[in-house]
Amino acid sequence: MEIRLAKSYGFCFGVKRAIKIAEESPNSKTFGPLIHNKNEIERLAKNFNVGLVENLEEIEPKSRIIVRTHGIPKDQLKFLQSQDVEIIDATCPFVTKPQEIVEKMSKEGYSIVIFGDRNHPEIKGVMSYAKDPIVVLSVEELKEYLPKLKERVATVAQTTRKFQEYQKIVLFLMEHKKEVRVFNTICNATFENQDAARELSKEADVMIIIGGKNSSNTKQLYRICKEHCKDSYLVENRDELKPEWFVNKKVCGITAGASTPNWIIEEVIEKIRKLEYN
Amino acid sequence: MEIRLAKSYGFCFGVKRAIKIAEESPNSKTFGPLIHNKNEIERLAKNFNVGLVENLEEIEPKSRIIVRTHGIPKDQLKFLQSQDVEIIDATCPFVTKPQEIVEKMSKEGYSIVIFGDRNHPEIKGVMSYAKDPIVVLSVEELKEYLPKLKERVATVAQTTRKFQEYQKIVLFLMEHKKEVRVFNTICNATFENQDAARELSKEADVMIIIGGKNSSNTKQLYRICKEHCKDSYLVENRDELKPEWFVNKKVCGITAGASTPNWIIEEVIEKIRKLEYN
Repeated sequence: MEIRLAKSYGFCFGVKRAIKIAEESPNSKTFGPLIHNKNEIERLAKNFNVGLVENLEEIEPKSRIIVRTHGIPKDQLKFLQSQDVEIIDATCPFVTKPQEIVEKMSKEGYSIVIFGDRNHPEIKGVMSYAKDPIVVLSVEELKEYLPKLKERVATVAQTTRKFQEYQKIVLFLMEHKKEVRVFNTICNATFENQDAARELSKEADVMIIIGGKNSSNTKQLYRICKEHCKDSYLVENRDELKPEWFVNKKVCGITAGASTPNWIIEEVIEKIRKLEYN
Repeated sequence: MEIRLAKSYGFCFGVKRAIKIAEESPNSKTFGPLIHNKNEIERLAKNFNVGLVENLEEIEPKSRIIVRTHGIPKDQLKFLQSQDVEIIDATCPFVTKPQEIVEKMSKEGYSIVIFGDRNHPEIKGVMSYAKDPIVVLSVEELKEYLPKLKERVATVAQTTRKFQEYQKIVLFLMEHKKEVRVFNTICNATFENQDAARELSKEADVMIIIGGKNSSNTKQLYRICKEHCKDSYLVENRDELKPEWFVNKKVCGITAGASTPNWIIEEVIEKIRKLEYN
């Protein structure tokens, strides 16, 4: 049986980069969980003594503090800078970008519209760099804020939002404002994983999707695969694999959710190979 | 019978303004026809001695030259400025705006996309203020130019284009470029006349649409009125009115195409009132 990996799967660029930074910064502490994956955070703690602080008050002098992928609000960064600590910035560059944009656009006098979720850490960070930003998830919400906006509006989007939804926000702004400055800050990583899973599931006899059973992006991958390959299975780790899934199969496709580290994927592949020979 | 005028009809703001400027500048010459209306140009010649030159070579020293509503290309303006003539600028402010925008955006390093017709005088003028502008009428055309564009694009539209078509251009740019700076330079005058004609035709027993029979915007007004009022008639002037149209009618609605001067409209109204009493 041939095992094929999706062209794009698992961690995105920003998460891979943050983990590499953490591995290269032993005996440090992340301010908030580095990424949304408990197994990986435990591994970093065990192998590299990378700890975790949840509040600014817990931070001790002379410590090394890693800023996580989502970034942090400006006032928190300023506080860290004022302390006697080493700051290691693992903010995803795709998140730093909208922070820089809204700061610059606010200075140039534009009203700022952020398309995203105001409760998400990434957006809390981005908001903190803007002057009086409007944060919305839909045109309906935006309508209410319209009278507050100047004729010159600059807009950015949360990196994980759907592009088509962002377009609706822009079309609405265009209808009502003289100048709309549109920055496409959406990151394609999630959609690349989905496209690659779709493609692979068309060729595979059996598809294994690795990821958390309560992870929404993993479940989305499973749904996509199931559409094209009826023998699609979602597993959290190698222990859930069943030998009968692979009987008389020629091609086994593998993909993984955005919060699944490579070592879990490798363990699954190794186990599938073993099942074959037993 | 009550005669009701549409809330918006005939000349737009820019044309009214240009005619006022011409009336206040006797013994001058327009460089190219001031507006697209022969009757009105004849009236200005007769009453105010406002003449016409078609080529830069014809311009005589010490003359007063009126720049028409559509504006002119930058090199022609510079030539005029270098001559011993008085320049009177009747360029519509809604046309001056995109000229200024593309000039500024070119200087700031943006690629320029103009949504409009490269053969229209307005767009020839706007183009002349941009560095290497791309001028397109559709997404299909734009696709071919995509590789030529930088990641930062600024876009303007011809004042008379449909907003929905401009939105398509913007959506396409958003999909392919990091920053799209959208300036809404479309003028609503044409659409305001159409909306007002639609509204009035729903209330009227008979609708009179005044304008050239080969004028596309007048014919469009006629089509809109005919939809809601079966007794709709398109006339070029008062001589075409027929008494039987008004028999037993309670409300007569009046609208006029964008190239119809007020004095023609007034003559028509006067004639309708006379027909009633005869």
